[in-house]
Amino acid sequence: MTSQPANLNELVGQHTPGYALPREFYTSEAVFDRDIADVWNRNWIWVGHESQIPEPGDYFLFDYGPESLIIVRDRNGDVRAHLNVCRHRGSRVCVEGAGKARVFVCPYHAWTYELSGELRAGREMGPDFNPEDWGLKPAHVQIFQGLILVCPSAEAPPMDQALGQLAPLTAPFGFEDLKVVHTANYPVPANWKLAVENYLECYHCAPAHQEYSRSHTLKSPQQMEALLPAMYERAVAAGLPNQVLDLTGEHALSPGSEVYYRRYPLYEGFKTGSKMGEPLAPLLGNLTDYDGGATDIVLGILNYFLIYSDHVVGYRFVPRTIQETDIQVVWMVRKDAEEGRDYNSEDLTWLWHVTSQDDERIIRHNQAGVNSHFFEPGPLADMEWAINDFYRFYKTMISPR
Amino acid sequence: MTSQPANLNELVGQHTPGYALPREFYTSEAVFDRDIADVWNRNWIWVGHESQIPEPGDYFLFDYGPESLIIVRDRNGDVRAHLNVCRHRGSRVCVEGAGKARVFVCPYHAWTYELSGELRAGREMGPDFNPEDWGLKPAHVQIFQGLILVCPSAEAPPMDQALGQLAPLTAPFGFEDLKVVHTANYPVPANWKLAVENYLECYHCAPAHQEYSRSHTLKSPQQMEALLPAMYERAVAAGLPNQVLDLTGEHALSPGSEVYYRRYPLYEGFKTGSKMGEPLAPLLGNLTDYDGGATDIVLGILNYFLIYSDHVVGYRFVPRTIQETDIQVVWMVRKDAEEGRDYNSEDLTWLWHVTSQDDERIIRHNQAGVNSHFFEPGPLADMEWAINDFYRFYKTMISPR
Amino acid sequence: MTSQPANLNELVGQHTPGYALPREFYTSEAVFDRDIADVWNRNWIWVGHESQIPEPGDYFLFDYGPESLIIVRDRNGDVRAHLNVCRHRGSRVCVEGAGKARVFVCPYHAWTYELSGELRAGREMGPDFNPEDWGLKPAHVQIFQGLILVCPSAEAPPMDQALGQLAPLTAPFGFEDLKVVHTANYPVPANWKLAVENYLECYHCAPAHQEYSRSHTLKSPQQMEALLPAMYERAVAAGLPNQVLDLTGEHALSPGSEVYYRRYPLYEGFKTGSKMGEPLAPLLGNLTDYDGGATDIVLGILNYFLIYSDHVVGYRFVPRTIQETDIQVVWMVRKDAEEGRDYNSEDLTWLWHVTSQDDERIIRHNQAGVNSHFFEPGPLADMEWAINDFYRFYKTMISPR
Repeated sequence: MTSQPANLNELVGQHTPGYALPREFYTSEAVFDRDIADVWNRNWIWVGHESQIPEPGDYFLFDYGPESLIIVRDRNGDVRAHLNVCRHRGSRVCVEGAGKARVFVCPYHAWTYELSGELRAGREMGPDFNPEDWGLKPAHVQIFQGLILVCPSAEAPPMDQALGQLAPLTAPFGFEDLKVVHTANYPVPANWKLAVENYLECYHCAPAHQEYSRSHTLKSPQQMEALLPAMYERAVAAGLPNQVLDLTGEHALSPGSEVYYRRYPLYEGFKTGSKMGEPLAPLLGNLTDYDGGATDIVLGILNYFLIYSDHVVGYRFVPRTIQETDIQVVWMVRKDAEEGRDYNSEDLTWLWHVTSQDDERIIRHNQAGVNSHFFEPGPLADMEWAINDFYRFYKTMISPR
Repeated sequence: MTSQPANLNELVGQHTPGYALPREFYTSEAVFDRDIADVWNRNWIWVGHESQIPEPGDYFLFDYGPESLIIVRDRNGDVRAHLNVCRHRGSRVCVEGAGKARVFVCPYHAWTYELSGELRAGREMGPDFNPEDWGLKPAHVQIFQGLILVCPSAEAPPMDQALGQLAPLTAPFGFEDLKVVHTANYPVPANWKLAVENYLECYHCAPAHQEYSRSHTLKSPQQMEALLPAMYERAVAAGLPNQVLDLTGEHALSPGSEVYYRRYPLYEGFKTGSKMGEPLAPLLGNLTDYDGGATDIVLGILNYFLIYSDHVVGYRFVPRTIQETDIQVVWMVRKDAEEGRDYNSEDLTWLWHVTSQDDERIIRHNQAGVNSHFFEPGPLADMEWAINDFYRFYKTMISPR
Repeated sequence: MTSQPANLNELVGQHTPGYALPREFYTSEAVFDRDIADVWNRNWIWVGHESQIPEPGDYFLFDYGPESLIIVRDRNGDVRAHLNVCRHRGSRVCVEGAGKARVFVCPYHAWTYELSGELRAGREMGPDFNPEDWGLKPAHVQIFQGLILVCPSAEAPPMDQALGQLAPLTAPFGFEDLKVVHTANYPVPANWKLAVENYLECYHCAPAHQEYSRSHTLKSPQQMEALLPAMYERAVAAGLPNQVLDLTGEHALSPGSEVYYRRYPLYEGFKTGSKMGEPLAPLLGNLTDYDGGATDIVLGILNYFLIYSDHVVGYRFVPRTIQETDIQVVWMVRKDAEEGRDYNSEDLTWLWHVTSQDDERIIRHNQAGVNSHFFEPGPLADMEWAINDFYRFYKTMISPR
């Protein structure tokens, strides 16, 4: 009945650093249960942007695995996150994906919760019932320059120090003034970790992503290095820093507090992640020009962003069941940009639409092969170093305490 | 391989009386296995009415979870129930949902069973084979005023005494002379226990059932009490007793022998469970008038009925898989009533059709929330007292012996 | 986490020889895991005929459970079989079901394998990486008169001696000169063992297979015996041996090395397995006439064939999930026969199409009944002797070592 397998330690011990994870990490229901309870529920999850809920009562839901969160702006104008589970008999309290609410009324027995999560009243619960004890369980909320991060568990990895170091680097992009213009969902019949691993390495970019590889140099570390000095010159001229911030792997301030910032060059002629290199939207924040670069950002362990000069793309790899994952891709531009005049959604989303379709295919085949009893984890390439860091972190999180 | 989890005792011990059940009761496959083997297989299940199988050979199947039962009238005119599992290699013996049979011939190897369940012949089984040893396994059958109850296990909870007490109370309704006029199936993606709990309390009626709450007073115990004396006066005048029979919870004669009878008032102007209060069918049995009441009946732990003055509605919450349940609603009227002339099926079924649709929705959201790792069972309201009794019984049934 | 249940021994011990297997063998995921790892992965599987891959680079995939095999003719003209799992991070290497390849390039990171399975190159894997260590895992290949058998595990049951005895018996049929003209897939919601058991006995033929029983005498051992001498006379005249080879059950040379050959008479007037007895295709191999017989062949434990005078039908019962199995039926005729002129596919496949549809139905009902908690394994009939042998073998294979 306990979801903690007796021999999770044994399984963790079977992994050889520098190699892929053993099959059971992707096929065992007990491991998946740990993935939700020990990894997703205890880490920061990027759920959206403040601009999605500008006014008190505006809310949206974020669901993963068996979990559901209400993200809402309360009467004081603060962003709050609540577990979407009624404290009475457990019903989902809020069942619309997004909207505007004055209170949250459970559809079952009408227990009514304030936007702040407090229980206003437990109807007919008798004189001994104290509503103060039965508010919605809160999730931690951290706003980083408009990006909303939540952590549902009582203890959240500390992020202040790491985000403090990141803040000046991202300041020129004006994240606070972004708006979400498109969200796409790519369901893939694979464990969420295979989707994260796919995102974490560009070893597969050259063979698997033709369009991406025409513009992005990550597929070739040598070419990237060669183009880096010129890009930094342009970046600095455009108002960007020429720094790298790597608080991941051995440099992480604490587990789950990972932060990473690195800008790298696109190929010559590419101002942004567009088909032919042309701009896709107005310059972000205070930028004065296109520098022909793109920034990789990691926040915590589950949240990834790519910052072009004129738009930001966010990525999440949302577990549904053990071998069903939604790759969620979110496109953001500056909030004063107008569709049709300043940007065109189809052009804006083209690159990561075709690239995510490629990824869906290869991740699916990866899971199919890993399911084989004959699968034996092979050696990682140098270009897959970030997967190693992910494994190290992951094993720490799911190890029995 | 054993389906008895080592720590079912531990799980049962985690439940606090007066609170909802912990998550694992609704999410663990091992618990679901116990639910079928220890609760459904060992208790009385209402499967239909004698009028559905008037002649020898008439039969129908009743399926739940992995089980299937044949309910048949044998050559002597008795109703029998058999496990629908061939004694040879286990095939379903009868594969049509209902019909008329002279014998039951297994579709696999033609083992042929009498209506009484006896094996007529085991083709080519050799001289040492004694057909008498290989009849279909019998289920217990109990007929209560035409209602067919079956219990598949070797030992069935004793019902004679409790039903003996119930008999005079229900006699005026003439259950023997009912006929089934409509059966509806509402599939809900939730554990069957959440569907039972939903039926067992009217705390949710006011917020969730607008139509029902216009006519039924159960949603407000105070209003019900206030209208009770006048209803009892009308009930007695119409030929009904003014008694309550509560052999449930602490008053149960033995576990699984629960019987409950209580009539309660509808709101003024409502003769029955109709849209505007108008009659829906001819008066049942010996009733001389509409008393504006409705009777709740419980038989055993799994079977629920609502008796209006002119029709009876039966309810079952049939488990399919751990989180798939069929809410089955069965409408009965007196057998000499004619569709079109005496009743209209659409009007007759309206209330419990819309009410069951509401229930499907709220039970579904209940399961979604209970699936969360953050679900913590909350306190039950006074109006949910019957759930407490159900939990007590349920825990007794699934506890390792 | 280990897929070896602690009490598999206990479960094996619960089986009484001469009776059906207990329920858990068909319902436990842990048992299914053993079925793949210990039975399918360690035995010979018939995957096709050499004529399907006549030239170097021609390949097809064979999938079962979570496994996938590449069967390919290499540059030397030899048939090879490889596990379709990349040695890097486990992706399926080949994703098209059949085709012609010069090399196999993994769709993920472009690791490139020769037709022989050797890794040509591991792109960017650094100086310490030796491609020789990372070829595709090989499966054993055994060609028997054109039929391709593979065994994925490192150790394969020895077949040479048994096939050596079979060779002269099948020689007159000219298996080398067959071609596959039709393959059909009958998905059945049942455990693969129930499908095998169904194939292994003709006790069900009379009640379940009307068409088959008109022409085939297996349903009646007495009638078969009576017609045997005349058939043997015709068989010998047509160029066939009058021998039986039974290297199964107690006569097996080693577990998994089973071979069986027995020819039996069709009813009078039937030259082959056709609707009215008429020929369906040109005589096989060196046969000079129709002898009105049919030969049952078993190769190993998983592969079954029926040889008529003018065509061969092969059968496989391919596990997909615990209760999803594909009955695969493959029709072969001599390779110089021409559709339309020498045979007609619809006539050729008629008998085993209708018979397999019958089998799908009865196997499905078998599984439904076996799922019941009330299922108790019953006694096998004499005509089900081969199931006994299958159980004996099966229990040996899955018993913990």
